[in-house]
This record gives sequence, structure tokens and C-alpha cells, in this order.
Amino acid sequence: MPETAPEPELAPVVDAEEAAHPRAGEPVFDLHVGGKMQTLATVPLTGADDLSLAYTPGVAQVCEAIAADPSLSRHYTWVPNTVAVVTDGTAVLGLGDIGPAAAMPVMEGKCVLFKQFGGVDGVPICLDTTDTEEIIETVARLAPSFGGINLEDISAPRCFEIEERLKERLDIPVFHDDQHGTAVVALAALENALRLTGRSYAETRVVISGAGAAGVAIAKILLEAGIEDIAVTDRKGVVHSGRSDLTPVKRALAELTADRTGRSGSLAEALDGADVYLGVSGGTVPEEDVARMAPEAIIFAMANPTPEVHPDLAHRYARVVATGRSDFPNQINNVLAFPGIFRGAFDVGATAITEGMKLAAARALADLVGDDLSEAYVIPSPFDARVGPAVATAVAEAARAEGVARR
Amino acid sequence: MPETAPEPELAPVVDAEEAAHPRAGEPVFDLHVGGKMQTLATVPLTGADDLSLAYTPGVAQVCEAIAADPSLSRHYTWVPNTVAVVTDGTAVLGLGDIGPAAAMPVMEGKCVLFKQFGGVDGVPICLDTTDTEEIIETVARLAPSFGGINLEDISAPRCFEIEERLKERLDIPVFHDDQHGTAVVALAALENALRLTGRSYAETRVVISGAGAAGVAIAKILLEAGIEDIAVTDRKGVVHSGRSDLTPVKRALAELTADRTGRSGSLAEALDGADVYLGVSGGTVPEEDVARMAPEAIIFAMANPTPEVHPDLAHRYARVVATGRSDFPNQINNVLAFPGIFRGAFDVGATAITEGMKLAAARALADLVGDDLSEAYVIPSPFDARVGPAVATAVAEAARAEGVARR
Repeated sequence: MPETAPEPELAPVVDAEEAAHPRAGEPVFDLHVGGKMQTLATVPLTGADDLSLAYTPGVAQVCEAIAADPSLSRHYTWVPNTVAVVTDGTAVLGLGDIGPAAAMPVMEGKCVLFKQFGGVDGVPICLDTTDTEEIIETVARLAPSFGGINLEDISAPRCFEIEERLKERLDIPVFHDDQHGTAVVALAALENALRLTGRSYAETRVVISGAGAAGVAIAKILLEAGIEDIAVTDRKGVVHSGRSDLTPVKRALAELTADRTGRSGSLAEALDGADVYLGVSGGTVPEEDVARMAPEAIIFAMANPTPEVHPDLAHRYARVVATGRSDFPNQINNVLAFPGIFRGAFDVGATAITEGMKLAAARALADLVGDDLSEAYVIPSPFDARVGPAVATAVAEAARAEGVARR
Repeated sequence: MPETAPEPELAPVVDAEEAAHPRAGEPVFDLHVGGKMQTLATVPLTGADDLSLAYTPGVAQVCEAIAADPSLSRHYTWVPNTVAVVTDGTAVLGLGDIGPAAAMPVMEGKCVLFKQFGGVDGVPICLDTTDTEEIIETVARLAPSFGGINLEDISAPRCFEIEERLKERLDIPVFHDDQHGTAVVALAALENALRLTGRSYAETRVVISGAGAAGVAIAKILLEAGIEDIAVTDRKGVVHSGRSDLTPVKRALAELTADRTGRSGSLAEALDGADVYLGVSGGTVPEEDVARMAPEAIIFAMANPTPEVHPDLAHRYARVVATGRSDFPNQINNVLAFPGIFRGAFDVGATAITEGMKLAAARALADLVGDDLSEAYVIPSPFDARVGPAVATAVAEAARAEGVARR
């Protein structure tokens, strides 16, 4: 009887029918055949001795040891290096509520970026429910399987409650990347843009268009960083407590932002004399409104694929311009943040990702630019190999300083 | 600014503290440091062009295409090749209810065996609930993320209801391996043992000790294969309808087995003149009971790590002896079945794993032995490279014949 071990199949089996997939010849679809990721053993499995260690009977010793001392799971399982990338498919990219099956290509993409840029193992989880309580319960039940939870593309305002409740309930990092990833990278770029234009946090007036996940998180991290004058706008203008149509989330946001300065009115009015425009809304800002901003303005038009202000137009009025796109300078890209943040959190066994850890990540990103700072370089490239390690180190140090590190 | 892409980190980052893990020097624990598996990209991610295909903006086209035609998900995601290995940690190996965290090493082991022997991507899911309804709901909500569900080490009788209800609810394969994997391999070995000893199915009298997941499933598959005289025993003896202590599952089992022949009494009485003993119970069968079996008896003592009848003793009374152990001939090992079964089901997009597909898997396994059949070789080795492809092919054909194949 043959005793040769089969070679592991490194890629999913693709049959002839699949090779002739419906969109063959289109580069994006050709690349996606069979998906973008796999699971793979990190131990040898080629003979009976290997199996007796990795599986029965040997594995029973490891199970018993963890049952007796659960902290051993961080040594002997993949859990402490693994993040679940969890969505319900309700706010996928700019596409909106496309459902869990159609969201999978984004979640797979996120997982492979986690590995490529942070050495973190990602597992995509697309949930067949959009109910807040069901999502919370489901993720809590999955928690023993993962070292952290990255919430992704869940629509506002449910995303806020889901994240908050899971943070309270679980003792592993829970991080809604659409909020905090964007906020960390935007703050890093803004810090350098303010340095370049000689502004202080306290004197800078900021307008954020978009009061969804990213807008709320950006406003909060800017406040923590020391910016005092922030107006957030939605489709009806500045979010302030004088409006009768605010959700609880927007009411809280108003108190933290426009209510402090008494600002109200339209986006155009808010932009009058503003130093900084941060767009996370989609839509378009008319040129005459852009023209009302302060001299040496800063414009981050982060909507994808169409920035709220085209960079060519923005440059007529602003000194520093950033977008979410890779084909213009200064790309505000979450991949600069989330892999290093989880890498750092995992390296010290952090029980949470705190505000201090996010601020530390932003500062580490900003500092990488250093003396090369210029109008076209306020934020590192996603392919700058220093990014992941620098963010991870800063986040790990902050976790220890804030008392959330297990080691 | 540097533009060199970082190399992907192929293994989890292990810091100095982890290298000095608590059980250093013990081979099983040394092997388990950092866990046994990882996720990895199957597409290049080394430059901006790669990212624009695998992630934004390109990925949006794939999401939109799947939103418009959900069947495209089988071409453009990893889902159709991915199985969730789901446990609640209540019946792990012979260790019992050790909880979800301590169950993880077994689930990781299962996942890497899925890949090694079937080219199937496995994701270990250890649930923080033992409630039947909560497990069903949770797995159903996860279903869009996976091409199949392998239930593992969930205690009886909950495992039966969980599997049945999920099979009704989901249109992907749901398979409780502790039941059906064991049953398929035991049937394959038994088919060859009957051939060797010149017995027909209809004339063979079988005793199964153990009325849990494996015992119930073995009884059912033997009935389907044509064996008519089966007695299943639990700690109180033969399971028959005359007993007042039967659970609903055992009552149904009694009707299918001992009630048909009117058997009752102790295991010792059942073994008197029996042709076949199949042990999936743990515990020990006294030598005087083994001695009561028919001439040229068949003994499969499958409890791990301690067979119910030691092979040396069994050989005094039986012609064919099998165990669950790799250090004796004729290992009844689930790894002979589950990778090929899911490989075959996935290859044809099967919506379920039917009884016919399980029987086909058993026949394919039995047929591989062929003319090499002997007392010491009634079942192929797990390292026989023909096993996975042979099982997969048979299962795929059966799926098509039974009308559950999507292609």
C-alpha cells in the first residue's frame, strides 16, 4: 500500500468550468478567481509521527493544559494572532447595503492586507443578520476563536452601538476600522499639514463633511489631539443642537463640536474662513465654497473613488491636498493604520484598543515623514516598509502605558 | 520615501517570551507554539497596482457583480472552498466538556488536515455557548462566509438536533464528523472484513458499544448498507424499547436496531455469538465476554487512546482487529473520510451531504484495498495518497446522482 504523503494543495482546486469564469479577460475578475486567500498549516503533516503531535493523541495534552490554565492558549493556538473581520454587508465601500455574500471580496481583501502589512491572520466573517442585538450576540459567541475583532462596513448608527457594547463585553480588542482607521490616518496627515502651514491645534478651524462612522471618529480624535473648533456637516448643514432632526449620535456629536462655537448653517457658511476641510461624505463641494476657505488651506477630500473636491481644483485654493486615491499624492489609506495597530495590540496581549493607542499610532505615522515633509508628502506611502513596525511599536508602548497590556 | 513592499510575515510573530513557553522541551508543546495554522494571500500584494485590483477601487466591481448575481460568489471568493470547523467544546476527544478555548488545538488540527488531505480551507470556530438554539442561530448567521459546516466534538444528544436543524435550514453541506466520519470509515473497514471472512451483510450480527454520536451514526450507516441484526449498548446494556430510561434519540435507535430482533440484556449477553464488535464507548470489555463471540470474529475497538479490547487480546479470539490508533494495523481514522467528502461535495457545489454520498465514500475507501486485502489491511492508511481523490470522486458522482450537485 502506498505510504507517500500527498502534497498539500496550496491553492483551491479550480476546475475547467471555473477557469472559464463569466468575466474572464477582465483583470479584476481574473485576479479574483478562487478568492484571494487560503488557510495553511504552519506545522509538518507528512507522516504518522507528525499527526500524532499535531492531532491525536498528542493534541489532547495541549487541550488539557489549556483547560487547566486558559492563559496558555496564547502560547499554543493561533488565536492570539488572529482577527475576525466582521461585517453585515450594510455599508460596503461606497456601494451601500449589498448584503453579506457580496461583501466577501472586501473582507477577504482586508484579511490579506492584515497579513501582508501586519503579520496578522485575518478571517472574513460575513453575517446573515443586520439586527444590532443579533450581531452583538453572534460576535460575542465567536470571541473564543479570535484574538481581536475588526468591525467593517456596518452602517451608522448601528456601528456605534455594536462597537461600544462589544468593547464593554469582551476582553480582546474590538475596533471599527471605518471609524478609527480613517481617523488615525487623517489625524497623522493633518498633524503634518498643520506643521507645514505653521498652525497650532488650538487655533485651527476644521470643517468635516460627513457625520457617519468616519466623520464622528475623526471629530473625536481631533478633539483628543487638541483641536477645539470643529464643525461637522451632514446633508442638512452643520450638526448643532438647535436642529430638531438629530439622532442621539449626532446630538452627542453636536455637543462636542459646533455647539462649543455656536456654529450653524450650511456647509458653504461653515467653510467661510475655515483652515481645514475633511471630506468623508461623497458628494461635491462647489468651487465657490472652496474659494471661501482661509489662505494656505488644507483640503483632505477622502471620498472614493470621486473626491469631494478634485485635487486640481483644490490646489487652486489650498496649500496641502490629500485624497483617498492612490493616483494622487498624500493618500489617506486605512491600510497605514489597522495592520500595525492590531500587530502592536497583539504583541503585548492588549485587552482593548484605547484612545491613547490610536493617538500613538497617528503620531508614529506622522513622525515617519520627518524632514521630508512637503506639500506632496504629509503621510507615508502604504508601501513604506517602516509603517507597520513603527505603528506596532508605538501602539504596544501606549498599551503598556495605559495599563491594557497583558505582557 | 521608501517604496519597497514589506515581505509578508509568513508565521505569526513570536516574541522572546513566547519562545520560552511554559512547556518548552516537550515535543507536543514545542510543536504547538504559535498554533498550527495561518491565513495567507493567494494573490500578489506588493505594489499599488496589486492593491487596486485586490482591494479598492477594483474590488468594488466584484462586489457589485455578486450583489447582482449571488451565484458569482462561487467564482470570485474563497467561500466555496472553505469549511467552518465548529465546536462548543463539550465533547472534545476523550476529554469531555473542556470548553471552547481548550478545544481550539483540536479544531486547528482538523483544519490543517482538511487542507493537507483535501485541499479544503478550514476555519476553526469555537463557540462561547452550549445552548442548542444559540448554536443553531449562530452557525446560520455565519453561513454566508462558508461553503460548508463541519460540526465537531459537540456532545450528544444536542449534536443530533443541531445537525438536523442546520441541514434543514442551510443550502450548504452540514456534517457532524464525530457521527458520519467515523461511520464511513468503520463501514469501509467492515465491508472488507466481511469479505475476508466470507460473511454477507444479511447474515452478520453486529454489536456496537456506545450509543453516542458515533454509535448512532454507525448503526444507521450499517442499516443502510444492508446489515439487519444490530444491537447497540450503553452503560446499562442493550438499547431496546423495553427500557424506561431511554432518551428520544435512543428510543428511535432501539426501534431501528435491537427491537427488530428482540435483543436485550447486557453487553456480555449481546456479544454471545456475535460476529462483529464495534467499540466507540471507551471502557473495557472483559476477556471472558470477548471469548463468547463467534469464530473468525471481527473486533474494531476504536476508543482512543485506550481501545476497549487491546489488540493483543483481541487477536486471540478474532480474525480481524482494528483500532483508532496509528501504532497498530487497520487504523479507523476519520481523516480517511472528511477531507475527501468535503472535497467532492465542494467540487460539484453540493447543497448537502446525503446518505448516498456517505455510502459512496465508504465503498471508495474499501475498494482501494483491493487485492491486497488481508487481516492486517482492511482499510487504507491515512497517508495513502489515493485516498482523498478516490473519496472525492465517488462523493462528487454520488452528489450528481442524488440531485444535490449545483454543477
